[in-house]
Amino acid sequence: MKDFTLISSRENPVVKQIIALQKSADNRKKAGLFVIEGLRICKDAIENNVKVSRLIVSKTALKKYNDDIKYLSDFAVFFNVVTDEIIGKISDTKSPQGIYMIVEIPKEVCKIDTKNKRYIALENVQDPSNLGAVTRTAEALGFGGIVLSGNGCDPFSPKALRASMGTLIRMPLYFTNSIIDFCKENGLKSVAMVVDKTATDIKDYSFSDNDIILIGNEANGLKEETIRDADQKVTIKMTGSAESLNAAAAAAIGMWESIR
Amino acid sequence: MKDFTLISSRENPVVKQIIALQKSADNRKKAGLFVIEGLRICKDAIENNVKVSRLIVSKTALKKYNDDIKYLSDFAVFFNVVTDEIIGKISDTKSPQGIYMIVEIPKEVCKIDTKNKRYIALENVQDPSNLGAVTRTAEALGFGGIVLSGNGCDPFSPKALRASMGTLIRMPLYFTNSIIDFCKENGLKSVAMVVDKTATDIKDYSFSDNDIILIGNEANGLKEETIRDADQKVTIKMTGSAESLNAAAAAAIGMWESIR
Repeated sequence: MKDFTLISSRENPVVKQIIALQKSADNRKKAGLFVIEGLRICKDAIENNVKVSRLIVSKTALKKYNDDIKYLSDFAVFFNVVTDEIIGKISDTKSPQGIYMIVEIPKEVCKIDTKNKRYIALENVQDPSNLGAVTRTAEALGFGGIVLSGNGCDPFSPKALRASMGTLIRMPLYFTNSIIDFCKENGLKSVAMVVDKTATDIKDYSFSDNDIILIGNEANGLKEETIRDADQKVTIKMTGSAESLNAAAAAAIGMWESIR
Repeated sequence: MKDFTLISSRENPVVKQIIALQKSADNRKKAGLFVIEGLRICKDAIENNVKVSRLIVSKTALKKYNDDIKYLSDFAVFFNVVTDEIIGKISDTKSPQGIYMIVEIPKEVCKIDTKNKRYIALENVQDPSNLGAVTRTAEALGFGGIVLSGNGCDPFSPKALRASMGTLIRMPLYFTNSIIDFCKENGLKSVAMVVDKTATDIKDYSFSDNDIILIGNEANGLKEETIRDADQKVTIKMTGSAESLNAAAAAAIGMWESIR
């Protein structure tokens, strides 16, 4: 196993760094780093060639998962073992496994591949649980990646990563300020999902290979100009008294229809 | 406006009662009561003939929503105004509106109406966010009600109610210890959603009027005996590396297919 440094003070700069990275998207963006928690997601990250800056494990975890931690440590530049008390300060969950990696925010290197994959775009989606749920559904349905547009929630927050069950590490993510521009640049046909009875019923729309579904903000839907400039508007006809479907449910139905 | 009693001590039995009801399903079950929060859901409850035991509002809310609170108070047996400090103790949210009702857990009076409506059953679903999301999707798609089986989460918890955006107040709920028995008693054909490549692809299954979709627990799916005794097994073919769809996403796709 790689040599490690033991940390027992919560004033240690490494502890301060990991707490700061857990805390805010700004801190993550400035450092170009984020934190992942748990053995499984850490292994996933390595399999997906995520660059590991630092591995941090508790004394208890080191005993319990010795072989796994040995494996993880081979990929980390730095390796620390911390007291269980410090883990309590770091963790966002109630019963932490005690295994963390500080990893680099991936650079966008993946290309859109419309021949073999479908994509979904989220505009200003605010709730990390929704983002995580959409990513999880997208992966299960074989989608090629997620396009994130506008001031949505940070995909590298602890909450989003947890809700996605690690899929946010595995799925290619594309960032843009304008979905419509992104679609044009990548030869994608934008299919805006709207709450509008005059739009095409999604059941009646024939999806083609380069279609990409656009899902809007939880409260306000897609921006007016996005709807205006989209190549197609589709809607899920609703019969009940609920005002609209939850963003993750609308996305699930939309993605399903697009590959059905 | 109905006369109210002012409460300024957090030791007041009414305050203790509302906190206890927010806290646990056991307390709610014993009292036959639960708590709803916010003007909109309170109005919804009244429109759905939920029996209101007590209306509790903050001093600030009383000023701000005077007309609405006057309306609500007409339906409440008891009416209290509490200090904003007490609201802080009661509330489960960060910026509460300051309007609460203690209401009766509804008795099951609604009948299954398979001619006009579809239903969905959840077995041992644990996460109140999933329950809320499924209920919201069910209402939007015009479903007739939700069957809850086994030791799932409490639909009357603050978290479930919030995730459902009030739909748990509006949708008929049916409780049973055995989904299969419930289906037989109500002339429903049980369609178990399973993660099993040998099951019928949900796209290839023709749903009929008295079909009801069964969704299982988040970690373990449906119980073995439920799958064995179900009239039909269907699956959503997954192509990605995610092990399975989230329960709420699977339910959204399943419900959508059943009415498509």
